[in-house]
Amino acid sequence: MKQGQWVLALAGGVGGAKLAFGLQHLLRRQLVVAVNTADDFEHLGLHISPDLDTVMYTLAGVSNKIQGWGLEGETWSFMDQIGRIGGPSWFKLGDRDLATHVLRTQRLADGASLTSVTRELCASYGVAANILPMTDSLVRTVVGSEDQKIPFQEYFVRLACEPVVETIEFYGAKFASVNEELKRAKPGKPAAIIFCPSNPYLSIDPILSIPGFRDWLKSLGAPLIAVSPIVSGMAIKGPAAKIMRELGYEVSALGVAEHYRGLIDGIVIDSSDGHLQEEIEERGVAVRVENTIMKSDADRIGLAEKCLAFGSSLAAR
Amino acid sequence: MKQGQWVLALAGGVGGAKLAFGLQHLLRRQLVVAVNTADDFEHLGLHISPDLDTVMYTLAGVSNKIQGWGLEGETWSFMDQIGRIGGPSWFKLGDRDLATHVLRTQRLADGASLTSVTRELCASYGVAANILPMTDSLVRTVVGSEDQKIPFQEYFVRLACEPVVETIEFYGAKFASVNEELKRAKPGKPAAIIFCPSNPYLSIDPILSIPGFRDWLKSLGAPLIAVSPIVSGMAIKGPAAKIMRELGYEVSALGVAEHYRGLIDGIVIDSSDGHLQEEIEERGVAVRVENTIMKSDADRIGLAEKCLAFGSSLAAR
Repeated sequence: MKQGQWVLALAGGVGGAKLAFGLQHLLRRQLVVAVNTADDFEHLGLHISPDLDTVMYTLAGVSNKIQGWGLEGETWSFMDQIGRIGGPSWFKLGDRDLATHVLRTQRLADGASLTSVTRELCASYGVAANILPMTDSLVRTVVGSEDQKIPFQEYFVRLACEPVVETIEFYGAKFASVNEELKRAKPGKPAAIIFCPSNPYLSIDPILSIPGFRDWLKSLGAPLIAVSPIVSGMAIKGPAAKIMRELGYEVSALGVAEHYRGLIDGIVIDSSDGHLQEEIEERGVAVRVENTIMKSDADRIGLAEKCLAFGSSLAAR
Repeated sequence: MKQGQWVLALAGGVGGAKLAFGLQHLLRRQLVVAVNTADDFEHLGLHISPDLDTVMYTLAGVSNKIQGWGLEGETWSFMDQIGRIGGPSWFKLGDRDLATHVLRTQRLADGASLTSVTRELCASYGVAANILPMTDSLVRTVVGSEDQKIPFQEYFVRLACEPVVETIEFYGAKFASVNEELKRAKPGKPAAIIFCPSNPYLSIDPILSIPGFRDWLKSLGAPLIAVSPIVSGMAIKGPAAKIMRELGYEVSALGVAEHYRGLIDGIVIDSSDGHLQEEIEERGVAVRVENTIMKSDADRIGLAEKCLAFGSSLAAR
């Protein structure tokens, strides 16, 4: 990668944030992360942005690695009290985490955009990379199951992903527009565009559903690489595999490649899925086989390096 | 006191809440407490009602007796985090206490009145007495000092009552109206109306500043008793003595009686102020001399009993 070149990453929550952490280690301020906000919701009068927070906390090095979400050193007095006085306790808000939600909600109420608030919070948390919401418009994921329309956090948290997913809709998406500050974030062509190993249907698709987003990505003229979140037919975390099965798709890295076909130039698949390489390449998608399971910071940085090298090789073709 | 008779108490924060606790012990649901809301403010996007909360927590038996405000068993992770990410940390919000503020703010945003929200919260906390805000209208105390107008919590907390008080105004009071649910709280005549030992200028005056409030109190036809918060020329807690001095009033139980003159029938003063009895009675205000310092629950209940007995004796005259 040349000096001053930047990279655009698309990410949802935990899985995506891990790769973004590795990319940030290599790229610092030259990393731009466009984050899914279709999981955002209003709860207890607070604006909660789960994916933005997961990416921010992970890149700030303050995420709770044991729990997999939220802040390290978290305490739970607020939730305990909410439970005691009969408030809704199905969505867990840690005492420290609340500081983020309360400040964000107040700034939004003051008229600040989610982009501005995200920039302020990232500065406070000491994040080097440029984290941006996919849009400042309101987009909300709604899961359709047995004639019910279930708001995403109800499905994901309250119902623990139990309902069978028949449809996934992104309410408001067609009225949304690509975050202008995202488009202006860096001048020139990125070295690569990387779809982090987030849920293709629930984390990356909402971003791609914004009118003009796909065209903008293509217009950047950079190699577009996906990292498969499906390894050995299973999701590392979350309901991706269950959803793919319920929607009738093949639950494999091949299924992921099929899903992104026409958009991506290459895909990074796990070593355990090496047998799928040929089948994917037959569909016109370049393949890199790597260890994609990120248990340590070294794993995250290692995979980020492989992705950048893959990007360079694709750009050189 | 006859069966079914009720008592109306007016209260601000800590001092008033102590007597209200004693009264509730004796009267349970037959106690109505009208609470000052001119100290309320919006902070971090949350509606904070310090006096309502102090009375509610005290009457629920969950107040922090060591700290003097807030909830017992409180933790401070939220404030710690707010400080870390550069938010305003001058007003301390405990993690447990936040549950109250967040639920209240959400309910108010949903269109509920402060009276309704207070009723809901009191039910959740298991308060027997009927706690009501003095009004559902917005009234805000503003302290004038050296050509500055200082919102109450700025004066009280951020500036630790340091500015010399020249004026005290209750913004919005003239457009406010007495809480209708307070007027309707109980049928018939109360056995007594008791001004709890709260700051006369900052806690009771805002209540009395609401147009029609004094007339309503008088129309109830019950003996009206004040309990002096000034003992031996000092305030038990808070800036009452300092403010009386700065405003040029005599800092004593006599000064308190003078302040309420024309409104109260009697005043309870501390044993240490017995020498003031005659001088106060010369002004047409009946006096009871009692131990008014409430250190234990027994003290609180004892003083409440004395107040009710004083009320009965005044009613019998």
